[in-house]
Formats: sequence, C-alpha cells, structure tokens
Amino acid sequence: MSKRRKVVIVGGGFGGLSTAQHLTSDLVEVTLIDRRNHYLFQPLLYQVATGSLSPGEIASPLRAILSRQSNTRVWLGTVQDIDPHSKCVLLSDGAVVPYDSLVLAAGSETTYYGHNEWQEWAPGLKSIEEATAIRHKILYAFEVAERIADPARRRAWLTFVIVGAGPTGVELSGAIAEIARQTLKNDFRSILPEEAQIILLDGAPRILMPFPPDLAEKASRSLTKLGVQLRCGEMVKDVDADGLMTESGGRKQSIAAKTVIWAGGITASPLGRILANRTKAETDRAGRIKAKPDLTVPNYPDIYVVGDLATVADSHGKPLPGLAQVAMQGGAYAAKSILRKAKGQPELPPFHYFDKGSLAVIGRAAAVAEIFGLRISGLAAWLVWAFIHLMYLVTFQSRILVFIHWAIQDLTFNRSARLITGVTPTDISFDRELPEIREEPAQR
Amino acid sequence: MSKRRKVVIVGGGFGGLSTAQHLTSDLVEVTLIDRRNHYLFQPLLYQVATGSLSPGEIASPLRAILSRQSNTRVWLGTVQDIDPHSKCVLLSDGAVVPYDSLVLAAGSETTYYGHNEWQEWAPGLKSIEEATAIRHKILYAFEVAERIADPARRRAWLTFVIVGAGPTGVELSGAIAEIARQTLKNDFRSILPEEAQIILLDGAPRILMPFPPDLAEKASRSLTKLGVQLRCGEMVKDVDADGLMTESGGRKQSIAAKTVIWAGGITASPLGRILANRTKAETDRAGRIKAKPDLTVPNYPDIYVVGDLATVADSHGKPLPGLAQVAMQGGAYAAKSILRKAKGQPELPPFHYFDKGSLAVIGRAAAVAEIFGLRISGLAAWLVWAFIHLMYLVTFQSRILVFIHWAIQDLTFNRSARLITGVTPTDISFDRELPEIREEPAQR
Repeated sequence: MSKRRKVVIVGGGFGGLSTAQHLTSDLVEVTLIDRRNHYLFQPLLYQVATGSLSPGEIASPLRAILSRQSNTRVWLGTVQDIDPHSKCVLLSDGAVVPYDSLVLAAGSETTYYGHNEWQEWAPGLKSIEEATAIRHKILYAFEVAERIADPARRRAWLTFVIVGAGPTGVELSGAIAEIARQTLKNDFRSILPEEAQIILLDGAPRILMPFPPDLAEKASRSLTKLGVQLRCGEMVKDVDADGLMTESGGRKQSIAAKTVIWAGGITASPLGRILANRTKAETDRAGRIKAKPDLTVPNYPDIYVVGDLATVADSHGKPLPGLAQVAMQGGAYAAKSILRKAKGQPELPPFHYFDKGSLAVIGRAAAVAEIFGLRISGLAAWLVWAFIHLMYLVTFQSRILVFIHWAIQDLTFNRSARLITGVTPTDISFDRELPEIREEPAQR
Repeated sequence: MSKRRKVVIVGGGFGGLSTAQHLTSDLVEVTLIDRRNHYLFQPLLYQVATGSLSPGEIASPLRAILSRQSNTRVWLGTVQDIDPHSKCVLLSDGAVVPYDSLVLAAGSETTYYGHNEWQEWAPGLKSIEEATAIRHKILYAFEVAERIADPARRRAWLTFVIVGAGPTGVELSGAIAEIARQTLKNDFRSILPEEAQIILLDGAPRILMPFPPDLAEKASRSLTKLGVQLRCGEMVKDVDADGLMTESGGRKQSIAAKTVIWAGGITASPLGRILANRTKAETDRAGRIKAKPDLTVPNYPDIYVVGDLATVADSHGKPLPGLAQVAMQGGAYAAKSILRKAKGQPELPPFHYFDKGSLAVIGRAAAVAEIFGLRISGLAAWLVWAFIHLMYLVTFQSRILVFIHWAIQDLTFNRSARLITGVTPTDISFDRELPEIREEPAQR
C-alpha cells in the first residue's frame, strides 16, 4: 500500500479543504498541512469581531472534518520552503514531507502596502486571534469613553474608522453601527453609545467596487441609514495611536480615532513568492502565481496552486476574483485532476469557474446580492445570504448553533459574545472622578 | 437625586452580581466594579477548557445583564486599595470611587501553596484565558504526539495529570478521558488517542472530600471505567516542563507528563488581605475575612464581604463552603441589609445559608449529587446537574445554545469547540520523517 500516490496539500482553507474532500480514493495518501488545527469560515469572521458569534461557531477542527477519510492525515506545521526538484516540502520544525503531487492553497494575508507599522494601530481581520483582538478594541473603546468626561478625548474613543469598503469593510461598519445604535443602547450611564461615529473609508470612488453600481448604491443608502459615514476617494496616508491622516484631492485631513480596523487589502501568502522563486513561475502584483489553465505551475505538472495564492484567467482572459467559490471549485478540480493522473486517465479540460454570484450583508436583515445574474437587495438578499452562509458552514452542529444564535439576536438585538478577553492596555489615563449616573437613560 | 445612597460592589461573579440584582431600588445608586466586562459561569469553565463549549456560551457581558437596572452602572477597573475611613475605593488607574456601602465580592484565585513557579507548567482554571490556554495545551499535546515516533517521548505527550480531585479535577479528568477515548478516536493516523493516560492526583485519602464517602466511591468507579487513573494520598513535590515529582508514604516518584493542570487549591483574592490590613479584621488560613453573622466586617457595618473572599460560620459554628450558592445567597442578603438601612428599617436576622446540595459531573451522562439530603448518581444525577446548570446560566440565549450544544454533543460525541488558538510553543523537536498512515484506523 505504500505505492499509493502521496498528495500533500498546504493550507486548510476553502481551497485546501475542498481538495482533500475530493481525494477520497484509496489510490492516494493525503497529508494536509496547516499552521492551524481548524478550518475557519472567513466570511463570518466579522461576526466574531463584532460579538455576534463565538469562534467555535465558525471554525471546526480539520481533523474532525476529515476524520472519516482514512487515507488522509492532518499535520500541524508551518511550511518554510518547497523543493520542486527533490519533490518535498520543508516545515519550520525541520520535518521533510515528500510528495508526488503538491497542492498549494496557502491563501492570502492582510497587506498594508509597505506600511507594516500601521498594523499595530489598525489590525486586519484574517484569523480568530485578530477577530477577538478587534472585538476587544471595539468594546473596550466604549468602556474607556464611559470613564472620560472630556468631550474631545471621549469623541476619539467613540470614533471607529474602517479602512477599505469591500464586503468585509461594509459588513464590519454595518455591524459596528448596529452595536452602537442598538445593542449597547441601554448599557452605559455616562455616554450615549449612539453618539459613536462610524466612518467607512476607501480610496476608490465608491464602495463595493466588485459589485454592479446599482447594488453598491443600495448598499450605500442602507449604510447611511444605519449611521455609517461613507468617505470614498480618500486615501490613508498615516495611522498611529491617535487616529489617521488621509488625503483626498490633494487635501490632507486628520481623523482622531482610537479604533481603526484595516480591511484595506490582501496579498498572497509568502509561500507564493517562495514557490515562484523555486519554479521561476510568474506572479502578479499581489504576489499570486500565474497558473496554467489546468491550475498547475508552468513546467511543474505535479504542483497545483489553488485559491487566493493563484491567479487564473477566465475564458475572456480576465483574472478570476479572490472568492471562496473560486478556491473551492479550484480545489475540487485539482483533486479530480490528480485522481485522473493516478488512474492513468486522460487529462481534464481546463478549469472553468462557475460564477454563482456575490453577496454582502449590511447589518440586520439588509444585504445586496447578485446571484446567477439576478440583482437583489434588502430582506430577500439577506435571506439568501443567511441561507448560503449556513449551508457552507461545514458541520451540522455549527449550522444549528449559528442559526439559533442569529434568530435570538434578531429578536433581541442582543450580542451575547461581547466578551473582552486577552490583554488590556494599561497606559490609558482615565478620569479620577466618577460622573453622575445619567438620570434618564435612553429607553428602548 | 444625588442623595441616593452610593453602593459600590467589587466583583461581578456569583456574589457581586447577586448583590447588584437585588439592589433594584431607587434609594441606591450602584457601581459594580470588575476587571472583566463579563460575568463568568465558573462551574462550566472546564467544558470550555475541554472544547465542549465556547467562551461566549458561559460568559455574558455584565452591562447586558444589568442594562435595564438604570440605577446601576458597570465600571471596568482593577481595585488597588480600600480606604474604610474616608470610605472610598481606589482603582489602579488612579480613580477614586466613594461609597456609603461597600460590598467586597472579589472571589478567589488559584494557589500553588508557595510554589508559584509551578504555574507555568500547571495552569489553573479560573478565567476564560486560562480555559482556552488549557484547551490549547490538551489538544496540542495530541498533535505533537502524532508527530513523534519515539515511544517514551510520545508517552509523555499523551500523559495528562490533573492535580486536585475536587469537583473541578473530577470533571476535567472525566472530560479529558472522553476526548481521548471517544472524541478523537478516528482523528489521528499515527497515534491511538485512547492510549492516552489520564491521571487524577490528590494528597487526600480519597477524591471529592466535600462529598459523602459513598458518592465519592461511585464517582471513583465511573472515572475508572472512563479510563482515569486515580492516585490519592500522593502529594505534589515539584512540577516542571517534563512532568512532576510526587511523594506518597515517604516514597518519591516522578511522572513524565507534558500536560499538567492544577485544580489543587484556591485562596481568597488579595483584596481580602488588603481589607483585613485596613480594618484589622481577622482572616483564616486561605486569606478569607472572618465576617460577622450579618456578613459585615467587624467594626465596619458599611462593609460587607460576600462569597469566596469571606468566611462565615453556620449555626453549628462550621465555616460555610466556598460554593456558588453561598455567594449568591450572601449577595442577596447584603443587598437586602443595605436596603433596610437605606429605608431606616430594623436590621435583618443573621445570614442563614440554605443548602441545596452538591453536584459533580464525571463525563457523558454520569454524575454524583447530593440534593436536599438525597444522594443520587448516574444518569439521574446528570439530568439534575444539567437542569440546574442550565437554569443558572444567566441569559435565555446561553441556556438555549448550551442545551443544543450538549444535545448534539451527546448524539455525536463531537466537541465542536476544539480550537487551538493563541501562542504555540516553538521549542518542540519533532521527528523529521513522516510515519506511514496507519492502515486500519480504529473504527467507531
């Protein structure tokens, strides 16, 4: 049985997991390597960051998902290098993992376009740790504001800036607006949480650039109604502890804000660059490897690149977008292609992406969607959004729990996962005096 | 309205929250101070540590719980000192909070009996951060074992020692045994998780000392059946990175174990000691303040001590146990006493604890309980345990979510919250070679 073809998959996200799940044949022995022990349903990560869901509800252990596939093992480790000539992958702990076929699906990471120093003040949203850190930041800001009387300082603590108006930025700003206007409404005695300013900033001329203009327009109106300030065509020039500096049409402006969240851009995992060096493959500006139409790396028919790490052209020569759907379909294609080779069957026709549409949610029961060419918005889009997201959660248990969580939340506006955990800054200067409790708190 | 009596409560656990919830009168203005923004249902913390529940399911934001009590505010801060003469509380951030009545309910913390250096290797279980750190430790140990072929090293990674056989230790060891024998059964390809050794260690002659001997005996049998090794009458002498040294009847022994969890003892919060210094009150060996029968500190009728920070004698002169029930009833008593004083009514009769019983759970559908004097075990005790714990979760949402979580888990043995998050050690030396995938993994 050791003559089984060894398939090594790097990355347990949409692309890598999809590959593994399509490799159920006994002809192959599969090793899935990831730095994390869990699959993370990234599209709902913003709900963890805004206290709607718990990490456990959108993440599942990779071992549990793959436990019944007895030809597949999960390996916790960080890939450091790839040797396409001796055909093996090197882990940072020294292990050497040989492969017959390699599927690289290491995904993407947040980029600050050369300004990594901004990360300290404007965290991105790619992992559970980052999501809980952002949750800490958002909720703690209200706690600090409650304890500061000076209007300017209080205002800076109640200003939330989200950089980047793609789906993540739109969803985040909508959720923060809901927290301020509804969830926390009666929770404070000195501040009125609804005084919070939520600013969604983007250098592009409008929000949701990948969406059709009329849907983006509908999303803009929904966000404005929720109290989000949209500032498009405004570039970030600097971020520090006290806020950010922007530029728009040559005019510089500073925004005093204690909470800045970066949804401004992603770049391919550094493994893309490493593989490109080793194989002399071309990469695009975002560091993605230019794959052949069969998703392999030019001259290396045993190395597949899938998901955010790769760029493939569609039938019109336009690169496919960095979406979960593209990664999942790519993973399935790579798996089928590997099995064909193992069986000695003829090769598959080139990869063809089947576009099911795009979706973005703007808070409680409002969303925009383009599905199979149909453009919908409002409650209908939200229902489609909720249904699709529940279906793509991997486990039955997560589906039930998230569904109930959402149902209760929509009835009560409550966000039960509003926990501040982890390290709290100690260098904030609070007022020494306790203000009076507001006589008449805002009523529901 | 500023003539309202100012009540300051320190601590948002069972005692402090119960106090706040009983102070709904407009005669008082209440400030609840806690280092955390959430109330934590400690009795289920071991289920977070063992991947059954998510933190958000057993913790609720204090603000949300108290949001409808408009006379009450929540203050995030750390109390550093108490001045009973000028009647104010000092926070570590410099704030000064005056009070007319003070309720100190700061609870307890883990004690290593003078060996704080053991904490690094044997974490306690008091906070969400500790619970997720323990979860990391337990799950990561299996991951490391999967990657090590040497039998002795692998065995050390698969040995789990729980120090302290009180209810927490019993529940933890039962849950870890279930993880190894059932949850992870099919998840690994090199190790058999059921080879894991789970050792429950205590210096006392038997487990569950606060319980009657026959119930403890039943619990012992259940644990043994689950595969837990009980080692009573064995004292811990040292703990380090590689395991622990114990002594039993003059004989020293070492246990090679990469995972040690400390459920070995608790001591009163350091605030107890601070208050004792300021008021010259007596404390017991565990640092608890000896309260008067009306739960006030001798000579300071405006300072109440409630819960694990205090010790009060029952009608037979025996100190009351450190249980949630005692803290909750104490908090309610303190609140009523404060309101009587505010209204100028005569004082309450001395505090009387109404004992509803004790409970411990030993894994899937097995528990021991003594309720209203009735001793039960097995499934009946488990149902009582589950019912009571669900009822004492504060919010409706938590109740529903935890109930469904348990129901699914009992049907599937799955523990969905098995996430390894946070910082992972980097100094472990793994094998460089990948072992073969076991041909025939254990079947369900």
